[in-house]
Amino acid sequence: MKNLYNLSDLTLEEIYRILDEAEAFRSGAPYFGARDRVVANLFFEPSTRTHYSFQTAQLKLGCRILDFQPESSSMLKGETFYDTVKTFESFGVDLFVIRHSENAYYEQLASVKVPFLNAGDGTGNHPTQSLLDLMTIRQEFGGFEGLKIAIVGDVAHSRVAHTNSGVMQRLGMEVYTSGPEQFRDAHDNYIEFDKAVREMDIIMLLRVQHERHSENEHMGSDATAQYNRLYGMNPDRLSLMKPGAIIMHPAPFNRGVELTDEIVECERSRIFKQVQNGVFVRMAAIKRAFGGF
Amino acid sequence: MKNLYNLSDLTLEEIYRILDEAEAFRSGAPYFGARDRVVANLFFEPSTRTHYSFQTAQLKLGCRILDFQPESSSMLKGETFYDTVKTFESFGVDLFVIRHSENAYYEQLASVKVPFLNAGDGTGNHPTQSLLDLMTIRQEFGGFEGLKIAIVGDVAHSRVAHTNSGVMQRLGMEVYTSGPEQFRDAHDNYIEFDKAVREMDIIMLLRVQHERHSENEHMGSDATAQYNRLYGMNPDRLSLMKPGAIIMHPAPFNRGVELTDEIVECERSRIFKQVQNGVFVRMAAIKRAFGGF
Amino acid sequence: MKNLYNLSDLTLEEIYRILDEAEAFRSGAPYFGARDRVVANLFFEPSTRTHYSFQTAQLKLGCRILDFQPESSSMLKGETFYDTVKTFESFGVDLFVIRHSENAYYEQLASVKVPFLNAGDGTGNHPTQSLLDLMTIRQEFGGFEGLKIAIVGDVAHSRVAHTNSGVMQRLGMEVYTSGPEQFRDAHDNYIEFDKAVREMDIIMLLRVQHERHSENEHMGSDATAQYNRLYGMNPDRLSLMKPGAIIMHPAPFNRGVELTDEIVECERSRIFKQVQNGVFVRMAAIKRAFGGF
Repeated sequence: MKNLYNLSDLTLEEIYRILDEAEAFRSGAPYFGARDRVVANLFFEPSTRTHYSFQTAQLKLGCRILDFQPESSSMLKGETFYDTVKTFESFGVDLFVIRHSENAYYEQLASVKVPFLNAGDGTGNHPTQSLLDLMTIRQEFGGFEGLKIAIVGDVAHSRVAHTNSGVMQRLGMEVYTSGPEQFRDAHDNYIEFDKAVREMDIIMLLRVQHERHSENEHMGSDATAQYNRLYGMNPDRLSLMKPGAIIMHPAPFNRGVELTDEIVECERSRIFKQVQNGVFVRMAAIKRAFGGF
Repeated sequence: MKNLYNLSDLTLEEIYRILDEAEAFRSGAPYFGARDRVVANLFFEPSTRTHYSFQTAQLKLGCRILDFQPESSSMLKGETFYDTVKTFESFGVDLFVIRHSENAYYEQLASVKVPFLNAGDGTGNHPTQSLLDLMTIRQEFGGFEGLKIAIVGDVAHSRVAHTNSGVMQRLGMEVYTSGPEQFRDAHDNYIEFDKAVREMDIIMLLRVQHERHSENEHMGSDATAQYNRLYGMNPDRLSLMKPGAIIMHPAPFNRGVELTDEIVECERSRIFKQVQNGVFVRMAAIKRAFGGF
Repeated sequence: MKNLYNLSDLTLEEIYRILDEAEAFRSGAPYFGARDRVVANLFFEPSTRTHYSFQTAQLKLGCRILDFQPESSSMLKGETFYDTVKTFESFGVDLFVIRHSENAYYEQLASVKVPFLNAGDGTGNHPTQSLLDLMTIRQEFGGFEGLKIAIVGDVAHSRVAHTNSGVMQRLGMEVYTSGPEQFRDAHDNYIEFDKAVREMDIIMLLRVQHERHSENEHMGSDATAQYNRLYGMNPDRLSLMKPGAIIMHPAPFNRGVELTDEIVECERSRIFKQVQNGVFVRMAAIKRAFGGF
């Protein structure tokens, strides 16, 4: 049983292996070990990409899907998160995919004996997002060693930033962060944004996560309007980037904030490529959970 | 790739072909070309009939279904309709079925390379509804030429009325409309309702769509009570209809408004027959989208 | 066509047969008669266990599932329950599983010609819950004759209590009820709770169903806090139970009310075992509905 809590649990060899398996799926490799297995997707936070990307991966592998809707469940009658998960375990499901707003929520699930994939925990980890980012970067540059990336924006609230920052340093990348002062972490390797635009191989924009901010950190509407001017990607900055440099964003993105309309599908943007790769890394993670490698 | 935006794009020959394929499905004809294909249903408006009818058609054809729930998606985080559709395209889905409240919403999706079926756009078009109406009429009368139909009620707000009116005239039917003054279109071929009841082969009742009316057009509760007396079907009017004449309604219907309880399942009513045919025309539309004819 | 409305319609022989079939499924017996059949789950009340337990059973049998979401359906446009069910019947579904808040709601569905399983009607019946309770009891004690059970708590509002009380007496069990005065039925066979704890083979706790209480019956927050002390299971009472006696609860349970944290997964608790058995009795009920026995 190979659970996926966060990437720091995995050796670099294991990470490379997942990426290789994902590339094999992209090339149309078959896998029958997940066929007709019952998978429970428990998403306790709104999601499009991760939720439906996992579902697509499951459908392509022929899984049978239980898609839990917290809003019409017994959680309305006060049932706890733990009891909900134990209930699904008792049903005899073969795999869990869970997203929850609490950091490291999976620690309370230690007694659960069903394979498990973390689809995002609070501001903690988002391992499959990070894997799809790595897959996209490797497709572009052939490897990781020595690449320079700036993760820009709401770093403090971003599980994507946390997971990526750790694994990318282990892979030999130079990881910088940029963005507004109030979003900075103490141990960030800060770089001024316009310098980053000129020097980085990868500019990874993050969504301003309005829903995670406490009141006093909340950006005013003026600040929102200014965000793009100060820390957002737009045609002016696009022209300053190095040859071969790319733009990434985990999405959903706020048009006019982190990036202007012209950037979304421009030549340097890999945003929808990331979404595409997401299905393949999730197929690989499912194969791994079922002991396929 | 054969998209279905609206029926005015199709030749009469194409329309007859879809109806023939739908009849073949009704007789139990198999089709394996949609089997295991991943279909994304994106319904941005509440729906029972169209949504679950499409799902039933997909299940019967062995499709694998992604059923998008806007209310627990990243649209809560401000993601646009366009970006949502592009995301599903990037997942690698094989077919889109979309309903959206904006007229001709599909015009902004020109860059999408996945086959597409329109499940209703605002007050614009509803091609599969119209196809199931045609299928029901042909089953009853053997053809269309010379048949008289009155579409009764909220014609101005009805995508069903718009789509039906156009295609039925092309098929040689005499199309009239009736109902309250405030719901009339300028170029309607108006007929007084009680005259229609006596002379038409088909009385097609429309739902009073309270949710689409702006405030000043809104029917008062008195007016609602009077609607059935003036423009609704009831046992008195039923007895005045021509031999062989039928009653249709795209449903959902408001009992006591467009029709009284006695009418819903009376001998002249084809309301649930329409629902039944809906699954078969949608199977045909899916087969066509996948190049099955 | 073998519908399942409530257990009082079934002979004891039929009930034993369903339990035997459920045990066969637990042992891995295959059944192919439900494969690729289209099942419509219509849940008009929030549910985790019953809803997803039925779905799991259906997935394991290879059914294709239409999962109706009332909250994004045409019921928002005023469509009635009856018309919604008739619509799904017209789609050509092969089986209905329905939960609804109205007692004996299925009486209005007499004209529906599709096999039907009742997943709970108001405060009336909950036959598959009762079957899974019986399965759990038989696994524990080998039979029913002479066993003593106390059903504890909100008996008056509980469809589980109603269904269980009837069938268990028919099976030769001694059925007692206990709990607060305001929850008692006139014809209850009342037993004082602490006496029940010492004498019963089975203590079946019921959830305090806050959502079914009218205002004047509503427990105050003090009363809620006192409930466990008076009628709840906790380590003190646990130690007073007979050797071999067990604790059951249909769940969801309110931790700290009907039972304390220590009880949920203690050695005497069969709560998650009940959930596990629920999938097997529902597989059996589906097999029966499709004429499999």
